[in-house]
Amino acid sequence: MKAEIIAVGTELLLGQIVNTNAQFLSQKLAGLGVDVYFQTVVGDNSERLRQAIEIGRSRADLLVFTGGLGPTQDDLTKDVLADYLKRKLIIHEPSMAQIEEMFSSRGIHMALSNRRQALMIEGGDPLENTTGLAVGNGLSVDGTLYLLLPGPPREMKPMMDGAGEVWLRSVLGETKPLYSRILKFAGIGESNLEAKLLDLIDGQVDPTIAPYAKEGEVSIRVSTKAGTPDEAGQKIDKTLEKIKERVGEHLYAQQDIPIEEEVVHLLRASRRKLASAESCSGGLLAELITNVPGSSGEYVGGVVTYTNIMKHHLLSIPMTQLEGEGTPGAISDSTAALMAERVRELADADFGVSLTGVAGPSESEGKPVGLVYVGIAERGKKAVVHTLNLSGGRSMIRLRAVKVALYRLWLALQGR
Amino acid sequence: MKAEIIAVGTELLLGQIVNTNAQFLSQKLAGLGVDVYFQTVVGDNSERLRQAIEIGRSRADLLVFTGGLGPTQDDLTKDVLADYLKRKLIIHEPSMAQIEEMFSSRGIHMALSNRRQALMIEGGDPLENTTGLAVGNGLSVDGTLYLLLPGPPREMKPMMDGAGEVWLRSVLGETKPLYSRILKFAGIGESNLEAKLLDLIDGQVDPTIAPYAKEGEVSIRVSTKAGTPDEAGQKIDKTLEKIKERVGEHLYAQQDIPIEEEVVHLLRASRRKLASAESCSGGLLAELITNVPGSSGEYVGGVVTYTNIMKHHLLSIPMTQLEGEGTPGAISDSTAALMAERVRELADADFGVSLTGVAGPSESEGKPVGLVYVGIAERGKKAVVHTLNLSGGRSMIRLRAVKVALYRLWLALQGR
Repeated sequence: MKAEIIAVGTELLLGQIVNTNAQFLSQKLAGLGVDVYFQTVVGDNSERLRQAIEIGRSRADLLVFTGGLGPTQDDLTKDVLADYLKRKLIIHEPSMAQIEEMFSSRGIHMALSNRRQALMIEGGDPLENTTGLAVGNGLSVDGTLYLLLPGPPREMKPMMDGAGEVWLRSVLGETKPLYSRILKFAGIGESNLEAKLLDLIDGQVDPTIAPYAKEGEVSIRVSTKAGTPDEAGQKIDKTLEKIKERVGEHLYAQQDIPIEEEVVHLLRASRRKLASAESCSGGLLAELITNVPGSSGEYVGGVVTYTNIMKHHLLSIPMTQLEGEGTPGAISDSTAALMAERVRELADADFGVSLTGVAGPSESEGKPVGLVYVGIAERGKKAVVHTLNLSGGRSMIRLRAVKVALYRLWLALQGR
Repeated sequence: MKAEIIAVGTELLLGQIVNTNAQFLSQKLAGLGVDVYFQTVVGDNSERLRQAIEIGRSRADLLVFTGGLGPTQDDLTKDVLADYLKRKLIIHEPSMAQIEEMFSSRGIHMALSNRRQALMIEGGDPLENTTGLAVGNGLSVDGTLYLLLPGPPREMKPMMDGAGEVWLRSVLGETKPLYSRILKFAGIGESNLEAKLLDLIDGQVDPTIAPYAKEGEVSIRVSTKAGTPDEAGQKIDKTLEKIKERVGEHLYAQQDIPIEEEVVHLLRASRRKLASAESCSGGLLAELITNVPGSSGEYVGGVVTYTNIMKHHLLSIPMTQLEGEGTPGAISDSTAALMAERVRELADADFGVSLTGVAGPSESEGKPVGLVYVGIAERGKKAVVHTLNLSGGRSMIRLRAVKVALYRLWLALQGR
């Protein structure tokens, strides 16, 4: 089964939005055992949309459209496809009732154009829109399948995960789905990881191994087509063993979760609490940790001691440690150690973590951009400090530093 | 001039990465007066790539390729296009020298396949790659223009902004470029802004007004084609007046900068300093502020008092304010006021800002998800507290709350 994704919308051609729908649908279709051979973007223009349909029909068995189902004159997908297939547009009564109900319940006057959202192509199946008004459509005509989805991701995704998938499975019959597992790594750079797995990435045919880019994180995706989840799991486990032999100490999860979530889990499981003291990272570690739902049980709080005076006021670090000739300075391993220890004491937490360094754009205290010290203080122990030399712009250095700090915490929580 | 963007790469068809290149190139081409009519994505497959070239040539005057210029056997763009155009591939000697130099300077053995990156199509112009090894290519054959760019954004963007743009301008000659101005708003929701500008967005033909989505921010883009920047500026200014009449109090910038950058500018201009105390936002405000380069002159630091004990320890807020029956609780306007005042005093700053509320997923202190109090304390004045009722998931509530807090700070810094 060969598929083509056709996204309809001039805003995509103007670069006003990025085509995340194509990515979502490609992943989704792969999971259903369907191969996507082309993705096309075309504007809100009847003639060019018709051309795209014709070309798509000549090279694919399934055309998945997103966009152009809305109420405005620019929303052409149903009209053009109906005309191309020489079919009529008919009203889907339940959708029409839903649209009228929505407007009347809010006491808003309904523009007639809104009725367009309840139209569907004759002979097709309606696909329920649980988060919007435009009804979707599934059609099978002369051996080609057509799936019409809305453009806004908040409507398209639920429809594809719901009625769209059900419809596709019913018309596709048996296919061998693609199973994937995401492996997440920390404390190792992307290029370094790839170098260590290069022969596997290049040479491995089934399962396949592919790097999977995500800002500030390092992941790979292991994929295989299989008849059952169990069969897939066994195949993936075999490949996993080879990966673990080489970079096992950096593997922190076999699903797509960030390292901060693992840190919160480990804290929770061992009933321990964390506090943070941040300088160059400016609160990013606190922000990532507290973005994990329910983290208030594990994360007590922290300080963003962005200036020396705050390091002194909040953490009682002597000014003679921070400033003046011959002193270690704010960006030093001894300051990182003090920050981690003091914030841990102040918060009466089991772990204190600290970051101090130079995120750039210019050097500080005569120290180079990218130099960051990470301190980890555990109750009853002296703080351990890790020295990092990071590359990238200001935001990337901050993010990488925080991810390494979280990795070091993750190790410390396991007594490693 | 009609253009088509052809992105080459199986990773796009598998949904492993999102096609941000298409967005960047679409914006770039619009800025050069070129209309993008189609975007296509095709995998690393000779036959299908050849098909895409044929279709592209039949409907566009300019084909812009990204991807497939690298060293591996999967990198096919130059081979397939050369074959299609019946031209030879030749070695671009300066690129070859650069590649060899890179490997020898690092003392790494160079695989022969790396030589492929120095190949170009005979009769074309080489395009320098300042951030990678694969040389780009610009060609004009039988009335069609071909522009070949690398796939990785960190190589593609600098090449397009550099040698690619120079080459395109030289072959395009005169075109009327599209000028755009981004307007940034704060303290108003996207749908509310759109509702207030609806007739302008729908009815305005030149300049056009389009909402421009960006997470947690509200922006619109005003665009017009014009002969000179001055002519464009005058046309856009006229439209701007109409927009200002309706939502002028929310407009904080006429360029794509975040509100935190404006806040730092205002602090700097008035030589005032800021400190923060965050609860529900967990350090996000500190993180956004400190992500502005050079903000250490204006942002002193802050606390993330995620738990009551930290609000008590760090900010000396009495436990009788925070806990127990009949007390205001941590999520209250009086606690927000105390947090803002105390952190301002502690840091000896001119402004203190605080956030306390319920980011979710579940309610807290019997108070609903989305309820957030923002406190603004100014030296010599009592704190002012704003009550927000926000919608969205946990991350979105945090981001929206922080953006509103920054908007309130921005107003306060202007004495509004």
